[in-house]
Amino acid sequence: MSSTHIQIFDTTLRDGEQVPGCKLNKAQKIVIAEQLDLLGVDIIEAGFPVSSPGDFASVQAVSKIVKNATVCGLSRSVENDIKVAAEALQYAKIPRIHTGIGTSDSHIKFKFNSNRDAIIERAVAAVRYAKSFVEDVEFYAEDAGRTENEYLARVCEAVIKAGATVLNIPDTTGYCLPQEYGAKIKYLKDNVKGIEKANLSCHCHNDLGLATANSIEGVINGASQIECTINGIGERAGNTALEEVVMIMKQHPALQLDTNINTSMLYGISQLVSDNMGIYTQPNKAIVGANAFAHSSGIHQDGVIKNRETYEIIDPKEVGVTESAIVLTARSGRAALAYRAKNVGYELTKLQLDVVYSDFLKFADVKKEINDSDLHEIIESSTIYQELR
Amino acid sequence: MSSTHIQIFDTTLRDGEQVPGCKLNKAQKIVIAEQLDLLGVDIIEAGFPVSSPGDFASVQAVSKIVKNATVCGLSRSVENDIKVAAEALQYAKIPRIHTGIGTSDSHIKFKFNSNRDAIIERAVAAVRYAKSFVEDVEFYAEDAGRTENEYLARVCEAVIKAGATVLNIPDTTGYCLPQEYGAKIKYLKDNVKGIEKANLSCHCHNDLGLATANSIEGVINGASQIECTINGIGERAGNTALEEVVMIMKQHPALQLDTNINTSMLYGISQLVSDNMGIYTQPNKAIVGANAFAHSSGIHQDGVIKNRETYEIIDPKEVGVTESAIVLTARSGRAALAYRAKNVGYELTKLQLDVVYSDFLKFADVKKEINDSDLHEIIESSTIYQELR
Repeated sequence: MSSTHIQIFDTTLRDGEQVPGCKLNKAQKIVIAEQLDLLGVDIIEAGFPVSSPGDFASVQAVSKIVKNATVCGLSRSVENDIKVAAEALQYAKIPRIHTGIGTSDSHIKFKFNSNRDAIIERAVAAVRYAKSFVEDVEFYAEDAGRTENEYLARVCEAVIKAGATVLNIPDTTGYCLPQEYGAKIKYLKDNVKGIEKANLSCHCHNDLGLATANSIEGVINGASQIECTINGIGERAGNTALEEVVMIMKQHPALQLDTNINTSMLYGISQLVSDNMGIYTQPNKAIVGANAFAHSSGIHQDGVIKNRETYEIIDPKEVGVTESAIVLTARSGRAALAYRAKNVGYELTKLQLDVVYSDFLKFADVKKEINDSDLHEIIESSTIYQELR
Repeated sequence: MSSTHIQIFDTTLRDGEQVPGCKLNKAQKIVIAEQLDLLGVDIIEAGFPVSSPGDFASVQAVSKIVKNATVCGLSRSVENDIKVAAEALQYAKIPRIHTGIGTSDSHIKFKFNSNRDAIIERAVAAVRYAKSFVEDVEFYAEDAGRTENEYLARVCEAVIKAGATVLNIPDTTGYCLPQEYGAKIKYLKDNVKGIEKANLSCHCHNDLGLATANSIEGVINGASQIECTINGIGERAGNTALEEVVMIMKQHPALQLDTNINTSMLYGISQLVSDNMGIYTQPNKAIVGANAFAHSSGIHQDGVIKNRETYEIIDPKEVGVTESAIVLTARSGRAALAYRAKNVGYELTKLQLDVVYSDFLKFADVKKEINDSDLHEIIESSTIYQELR
């Protein structure tokens, strides 16, 4: 049996940047989009063009510079949204319009004061209208996680007939359990007429810490696209973390699910997004946290484990973590300092770290980036050096 | 059908604090243990007594002050480890010794240069010896995630016969998929003779972002204890996050799994651990991140959603997040500042936040804690206030 290609739909620039006080400007979005394109994501969702002139300009600018990925713009099931999205995407090599509407009873009743049949009509009209501008139209069924499966299947059938190429099944509130979410995808795969003409897409939120597991259950059960963000960034508890789902598929070849991601870029792009948004990843963040690979040194010290493969540990280089990748600046935390200090031979206690950290901050205020020899100097000139010798 | 009680085994003070440069001292461990006891955890793993005199003293001190929870000490399958653990636990109201050995082929071969039968003998001897000191003995099968199920079942049978009351099945390397881990627990539940005499325990690591999902699959498949830490802290990518598994069980009553946790203490204890270890949680951390509940304001603005229950959103108060819970100090990040600024009526752009953040830091250097009226003063005296009016 051959592997299935799973498309990686990156929404760092759209759903990901919806964090209070952390919006990205156009120049930042361009830099990140270029890196995402090099990383090998299949689709870059660049923004929600109708939402503001700034977002329109960002989507347009990203459309112009992206070389390989599809560029996608978000819209509601509203003609003007769709028209503006199409305009913003006009320079994209491969444009996609992402449109949709809420399908759960609470959305239908409270948000639209409507009924199930009328929602299907609006969905179909939106997809048809989007289709008049571009070939590739993705439809989102907002709050699909809490939409009854039978009705959701009817919605999917109708929008596929109208020309939708991708069906996005969002767990908008982040409350699904992996089994439930997987079962929902399987239900659609088994029950929607014409499903072979469209790809199912997982869009999960992390409110209960399950976004990664839900997305993986989704692709195991027949979805072929995952919507995610670098560092799992996003409003509330964020979206599915791109680096986690990609590394799970890579580390579990038995799943026979492949992506195009150049994993050696993961750490660098994590730092880029973190710096531009001003949101730091915690040291124990899976895959890209400063301590994620701190076991390497532990293992070497231990002297027991003979080789990494027996232990099935990710080689840090595989995700771009080299000795020098954890850069020390005035904005680095204690964990990064402790990690680098350990690498150059100093195992600091918490009290010692307090002292060295305070000296380090003074030094880092003057010198932008602290290298290994600076670190030796800082530690050896510190009052705790006697203890360490 | 009645609910199953799931025991929460907190290992913040043992597996959790194994972060380079972030070790806790005895006084800190006592404060955290007191709060864990009030939080309602069933077991507090207080340390690894033989590892150092400091750790011994911490376990002893925690044993003396804990009123309700079982206090547990770690040991290898080595007589002296077990004896020292028993000594450290002598003042505990309800003591538990946690002992064990690696059971995967790579551990047996490389770590112990031994064979499967000899490992079972050592495991049985360790449990018997521990049993000579305490009634409650937990056995860990290190690297169980990669131990063949049939052999693992033999190990479990043997240690139950020797008196083990709890069987810990760790996914030491953090590589299991939820289905695999759940299937392993189910296999043991179905195939180990005498399994009704012991509890199965999930101990998962988060290297691929799956610790929470794996633990939940474990209890769905018959385990009755979850080993976890506050904020998911721990070496590498950390352990299962206590707050996530607890809130999943609470938010999904259909699972019929209950805990004793007083969830309104979750946010406070998250801050306590974060402050004492000097490890900050990222704003999009599920349940306890500064932005985890930022949707509340979004929802109110939106004016569409009529009530929280329809939307199945956790009431922030349920986990102890009140308006004043996100405390602003000189160590607060931008996300916390933006959140609080928004709460008092200022929606800051990224550029505006840069300016206000820099003013805020100067202010916070002088005044320890920034309240709402300070915040108004900082913003209104800032150069960006004209834009905001």
